[in-house]
Amino acid sequence: MKTLSPSERAEILPSLDGWSLVEDRDAIRKRFVFEDFNAAFGWMTRVALAAETMNHHPEWSNVYRSVDVTLSSHDARGLTRRDVELAQRMDQFASGITRDA
Amino acid sequence: MKTLSPSERAEILPSLDGWSLVEDRDAIRKRFVFEDFNAAFGWMTRVALAAETMNHHPEWSNVYRSVDVTLSSHDARGLTRRDVELAQRMDQFASGITRDA
Repeated sequence: MKTLSPSERAEILPSLDGWSLVEDRDAIRKRFVFEDFNAAFGWMTRVALAAETMNHHPEWSNVYRSVDVTLSSHDARGLTRRDVELAQRMDQFASGITRDA
Repeated sequence: MKTLSPSERAEILPSLDGWSLVEDRDAIRKRFVFEDFNAAFGWMTRVALAAETMNHHPEWSNVYRSVDVTLSSHDARGLTRRDVELAQRMDQFASGITRDA
């Protein structure tokens, strides 16, 4: 799979909700904050099942109710449509259950 | 809960399998490597259920088949017996299913 073209980046990346470009690599990141660990890990479990089905996995860190996610396609060495798709699935699963940090 | 005393540290910490002290804070850490994402996240799920029951949660990062764990007791501002207990549960759940990095 190819990395996103400049025109794809200009069109798709601004449409993602709350995702930002990582400075020193071709990747996007977002922090998700939930009510508590139960909610955070429940969300991670839904994402894990989707990621496994897509065979495309996030880099993520969890501390209690917070999850920091970085997405990039290692095989393509940069952002691809699979990252965009996984970001959108993550947002979909988090809809209505996130909290202020 | 109090942080571990010097004598408790001298006795308990060397007995933990593969855990090392973090340099700049009172915490321990270990990297667990599994066969694939399925095995890594399956292990994380067992740990999450135990952590929730203990009401003591790890700080952890997952990239594909690797999980980096840091344990410390935020309320006590350092290492306590709960960290030792969670470390031992993590090792127990990982027994026989870890791989070389």
